[in-house]
Amino acid sequence: MSASEPALAVDCMGGDQGVAVTLPAVEAFLARRGEARVVAVGTPDHVEGAAARLREHFGERFRFVAASQVVAMDEPPQVALRTKRDSSMRRAIELVRDGEAVAAVSAGNTGALMAIARFVLKTLPGIDRPAIATVLPARTGRVWVLDLGANVDCTAEHLLQFGLMGAALVRAVEGIEEPRVGLLNIGEEAIKGNQVVREASEFLAASPLNFVGNVEDIYAGAADVVVCDGFVGNVALKTTEGLAQMLAEFLRAEFHRSWWTRLAAVAAFPVLQRFKDRVDPRRYNGAVLVGLRGTVVKSHGAADTFAFGWALDRAWEAGRHGLVTRIADQVAMLGPNGEGA
Amino acid sequence: MSASEPALAVDCMGGDQGVAVTLPAVEAFLARRGEARVVAVGTPDHVEGAAARLREHFGERFRFVAASQVVAMDEPPQVALRTKRDSSMRRAIELVRDGEAVAAVSAGNTGALMAIARFVLKTLPGIDRPAIATVLPARTGRVWVLDLGANVDCTAEHLLQFGLMGAALVRAVEGIEEPRVGLLNIGEEAIKGNQVVREASEFLAASPLNFVGNVEDIYAGAADVVVCDGFVGNVALKTTEGLAQMLAEFLRAEFHRSWWTRLAAVAAFPVLQRFKDRVDPRRYNGAVLVGLRGTVVKSHGAADTFAFGWALDRAWEAGRHGLVTRIADQVAMLGPNGEGA
Repeated sequence: MSASEPALAVDCMGGDQGVAVTLPAVEAFLARRGEARVVAVGTPDHVEGAAARLREHFGERFRFVAASQVVAMDEPPQVALRTKRDSSMRRAIELVRDGEAVAAVSAGNTGALMAIARFVLKTLPGIDRPAIATVLPARTGRVWVLDLGANVDCTAEHLLQFGLMGAALVRAVEGIEEPRVGLLNIGEEAIKGNQVVREASEFLAASPLNFVGNVEDIYAGAADVVVCDGFVGNVALKTTEGLAQMLAEFLRAEFHRSWWTRLAAVAAFPVLQRFKDRVDPRRYNGAVLVGLRGTVVKSHGAADTFAFGWALDRAWEAGRHGLVTRIADQVAMLGPNGEGA
Repeated sequence: MSASEPALAVDCMGGDQGVAVTLPAVEAFLARRGEARVVAVGTPDHVEGAAARLREHFGERFRFVAASQVVAMDEPPQVALRTKRDSSMRRAIELVRDGEAVAAVSAGNTGALMAIARFVLKTLPGIDRPAIATVLPARTGRVWVLDLGANVDCTAEHLLQFGLMGAALVRAVEGIEEPRVGLLNIGEEAIKGNQVVREASEFLAASPLNFVGNVEDIYAGAADVVVCDGFVGNVALKTTEGLAQMLAEFLRAEFHRSWWTRLAAVAAFPVLQRFKDRVDPRRYNGAVLVGLRGTVVKSHGAADTFAFGWALDRAWEAGRHGLVTRIADQVAMLGPNGEGA
């Protein structure tokens, strides 16, 4: 397999379920994408058996690479970086560095994944800090948000870089040529934003990006990319998850109240199912680490096979559409002093 | 009417609908709370007619105070402060300062309300900055969150003060003796929090508060009070509103898809209605300005009569249960150097 026949590197050991989730997802991915290749990385005793079967089924489109270590879900990033040099996570990322894969996917722990990816791949010129971007449903279309927690205490320059990277990401994976970039800020009623956000707003307005100004509601559909500090982005994401779970729980409780409401639930089932499908968080699984010299996608640790498959698709799209080159070009447009092109 | 017969001061002119919303809400409030009194403040031409009728109906329990000015919804706070010295908003707050009312309620613009309340009432000793607190539904019970946008760029000391004020608020309006206080922070996966939040966590742990540590999901029900920077709190609130509106819109769209789904909607209507009632944002209307020498409650500008009624009830509860004294006592417990009692 060469660089001209791109593959996806998959860390099969990451996530709460490990190979029980990752291997079936790889199989389904190869079945649905006839052009795709996968390099599965894992410990031989866990993966080898299934690997032989997949190899038989998909031929050269599937390859197995052995690793002797696994990064634990709760392992501190610096420990994983120092002591797990032959982990499945690291080997998968090295395949990207070596040009054998267009992207790597792991459901392993975020901190370790970011630390190892940063160490192995290095950041792109002009990027101070890599960021984590995720896609969410919006009223119209979808919205990408970054940073999601890789960086707290960001400067205005960092927020500008997030905007550049986010725009390149949306161009690569959504095919939108002039993505609308918004800056997460707070309402006109209160004191508008803090110093960093005010300054970032000026930088973004002066950049070649299609900057649409402040965004208060991520979900309004007014922007394709929303930029924010990692602390704020993580709070927005956790608030979203918490609220969605609470609402789902309340709705379930109301439908379980009596035999009459259970009957209503039966009548409403197909409708509720369609609604659920539309906002199913599994479809939005696969956060992209941007700003590195290679594409790495982080799947949720609790992802099931369906959700992990979405992360694989997202990584494949990003890798195939030259995400890294697009980000590098976008940053280069800004020039060495951060002045707009 | 004297201080021994407490009343609620209501700015009847604030909000998108003004008297069309506030006066019917005042009438319903007086009808449902036999012990309550209201001083309605407004411009004579807008309020006097209805005031005469209310006076006839409720006797001494209703009083009208004339103001000659109205603060506009989009008026800059400093302009309102300087040029609107006889506004209904300011007169209502002055009634609190003068001991003629236990609390003031306004649906006027937040910035002006905070600026005028701060100028007229002054902050409590030991409080650097007043904050805005709101209540939200949680999986179990309810949760108060502060700050919601009055303060961006908070220090760890400010976050500690928010904790003290929030605990006193929950004690006053919810009757919970040892409220669980949480600090909004981001997950274990990412770098834990920023410098200010880490320091605030230490301050809160050393304080006499019932501090339960970091909270990632406001809605989990793990805390009665969640403390955060105003920027972060405002983002969490707007994310909540945006997501809830989007989900409601998607659900409505699914039920309107065909004659069959419309039929399902009819069957499910009572269930959906109960669900809607439970999370109805109107029930959570009425944000409390805390840290001042008097209680001021801010209603949403777009509140209807039902929602404005909730703000009146909340203000009444806070005022009647000595919110200001409770906050002052709570802060005093900490001692002059911020050391725990």
